[in-house]
Amino acid sequence: MNETPKGSRLHVAIFGRRNAGKSSLINALTNQDIALVSDVPGTTTDPVYKAMEILPVGPVMIIDTAGIDDSGELGSMRVERTRQVLNKTDLAILVIDPAAGVAQPETELAAAIRERSISMVAVVSKADLHAPEPMAITPWEEKLGVPVLPVSSHTRQGIEDLKRRMIQAAPEHWEGQPVIGDLLRPGDTVVLVVPIDLAAPKGRLILPQVQTIRDVLDYDAYCVVTKERELRVALANLKQLPRIVVTDSQEFSKVAADTPPEVWLTSFSILMARHKGDLDTLAAGAKAIESLQPGDSVLIAEGCTHHQQADDIGKVKIPRWLRQAVGGDLDFHWTTGGDFPSDLSRYRLIVHCGACMLNRREMLYRLSIAREKGVPIVNYGVLIAFVHGILPRALKPFPSAGMAFET
Amino acid sequence: MNETPKGSRLHVAIFGRRNAGKSSLINALTNQDIALVSDVPGTTTDPVYKAMEILPVGPVMIIDTAGIDDSGELGSMRVERTRQVLNKTDLAILVIDPAAGVAQPETELAAAIRERSISMVAVVSKADLHAPEPMAITPWEEKLGVPVLPVSSHTRQGIEDLKRRMIQAAPEHWEGQPVIGDLLRPGDTVVLVVPIDLAAPKGRLILPQVQTIRDVLDYDAYCVVTKERELRVALANLKQLPRIVVTDSQEFSKVAADTPPEVWLTSFSILMARHKGDLDTLAAGAKAIESLQPGDSVLIAEGCTHHQQADDIGKVKIPRWLRQAVGGDLDFHWTTGGDFPSDLSRYRLIVHCGACMLNRREMLYRLSIAREKGVPIVNYGVLIAFVHGILPRALKPFPSAGMAFET
Repeated sequence: MNETPKGSRLHVAIFGRRNAGKSSLINALTNQDIALVSDVPGTTTDPVYKAMEILPVGPVMIIDTAGIDDSGELGSMRVERTRQVLNKTDLAILVIDPAAGVAQPETELAAAIRERSISMVAVVSKADLHAPEPMAITPWEEKLGVPVLPVSSHTRQGIEDLKRRMIQAAPEHWEGQPVIGDLLRPGDTVVLVVPIDLAAPKGRLILPQVQTIRDVLDYDAYCVVTKERELRVALANLKQLPRIVVTDSQEFSKVAADTPPEVWLTSFSILMARHKGDLDTLAAGAKAIESLQPGDSVLIAEGCTHHQQADDIGKVKIPRWLRQAVGGDLDFHWTTGGDFPSDLSRYRLIVHCGACMLNRREMLYRLSIAREKGVPIVNYGVLIAFVHGILPRALKPFPSAGMAFET
Repeated sequence: MNETPKGSRLHVAIFGRRNAGKSSLINALTNQDIALVSDVPGTTTDPVYKAMEILPVGPVMIIDTAGIDDSGELGSMRVERTRQVLNKTDLAILVIDPAAGVAQPETELAAAIRERSISMVAVVSKADLHAPEPMAITPWEEKLGVPVLPVSSHTRQGIEDLKRRMIQAAPEHWEGQPVIGDLLRPGDTVVLVVPIDLAAPKGRLILPQVQTIRDVLDYDAYCVVTKERELRVALANLKQLPRIVVTDSQEFSKVAADTPPEVWLTSFSILMARHKGDLDTLAAGAKAIESLQPGDSVLIAEGCTHHQQADDIGKVKIPRWLRQAVGGDLDFHWTTGGDFPSDLSRYRLIVHCGACMLNRREMLYRLSIAREKGVPIVNYGVLIAFVHGILPRALKPFPSAGMAFET
């Protein structure tokens, strides 16, 4: 209920051979400080995600992977699975089995981790049973390129040291930009426009709205939260104009009409795009809609499998808007969840959701492969603002993204 | 993430013999409309809770119980377990096995349901295999006192009828009072004071805060959300004073000083107490603190097992405040979760949490047994307001509760 959102947790992937002691290590890390929040069971080939609190590291998503030495399945499947995990890993822990040491599975994995510039911490497990000689560890450290810490999940030897190394190794900006706080001065007023439609679950607000309210408070500003219908009343009751108005994308036009032109106006989707990824890339992608031709292939990528609405944004509204913009039909393809194709060459445009269920590392990965293949990529919020002709206004608080769109 | 809170779901308990087809019926009810939100596995003797969306009934908490004919365990355990389920049941569905008909297990259960004035719907399952004769059904209906609907989870015969009956049978006020909406006029301003302390999970707001924001919007008003530190700035920027200020209980004193005396001021805990239960009973309970003597037994009841804080409200702060109020030590006892003792006779006061994880039916049950035994009961919010001398002000928006406290 009061959980830290999945996307705001440091994603820690645990790698090692079968029986290297990965599960015991996870238990030792959370022992006595445990707050096991959820446990999504996977199959033997799928990694298991565990939302946990490791004190003092903080809220993490542990990705418990299958053994890197598991030859029972097809090698290519294992490589693909590891690739998918690495695409969302902020910090990798390699657990070395003292009986096996560092051999091909370990060095291959370490190479894949290094290639992606992912931080890695290495431990050798079962130190209470096989206290490793420093002479044995030195060549392992040379092969892996990182120090190797002896730990015992049983006696807890090295566990607090490991936590310290995890904190030191966690990438500095893994959480990305603040949602909105860096745009604010203490005491500023932020107006948030939250439409309540049938899709809104009873008694709740959706995650980007809650995250934005929280970020405003964290940065010593305060917010006015209103439906679009009461926006005018709410603005009229303020002595000083707000610093910025943030609206649900789908109400952008109405809200733009009610917001004085000198006040910044943007959308939750654009805030989340910046928080989660790279707004400049997405803004540049919007430009590409102008040169889209009937018949072109368009990929619509959603980060989660949500309950489909009759007038679903990804399935119905966005295709309709794009057909109108292009003046003809397009060849639409859809993906959901972890399933983002590595071959994007057929697409002339990728339209991505707000990514509220993805972490920043994964969103940056998706943006990077789009850029690499030269495929323009937008998100829902940027696209909606664009097709309604209000993108320049929505990007005003973000000058570099505005320039990426104009040029 | 976007779930309807547990306490705001219609609690539907499914009863029947082992193999009566309870699980198939649950699947049929959610079939194609399924949105299985969570599944807390129980042991064989514990009921299983499933948060689901049954269209068009809405968000429900299905309580899947063990067989009412299960004689493999001690009879008293089964009775106790059924009693605990019934204490939170808004609507009971009795599934009759056509091979067994209505006999002692069914009539005993129906009597227990009737005794508690719980709405009941009865079905006879497996209608595709054993199409029951109307002549067979009539005596069942007489024994149970409700119509019996033939259904088949396999062919879906009767399933839509059952959903209609569920909607008709759901008690009208099972959700209780609005959180705040009935105090508001359209266009009103509500100020919500949300302290951000270490206990607040990153990126989130706590549930009563989110529910209050949502209720304000649902009733066509709007809110200003601020930390206690920015409250003065936020109030100063309003042309018209707000209708009401709602604060976290622990900041009541500071917020009371900053809120003009002519503006209503209450706490999230008091709003939730009214939403979930009966504020008048809790306000009357606060009076009893005045006559508490050193050495008296006090029960502190929490609805969930949350992460303990160093300065935990239930474990540390409330005992400290009560000792100060009484001028001596007290004999404190604690309960958490579903574990509310049925024997309350030893206690001179019960202090209950805000019940954010309990449904209204269960909270009303707890209040009713306290009243029955003549044991005064307060909740955290009412107690905090009382010990800080501000309860009369916090109850001003609620005249009948104010009178219950004064007399």
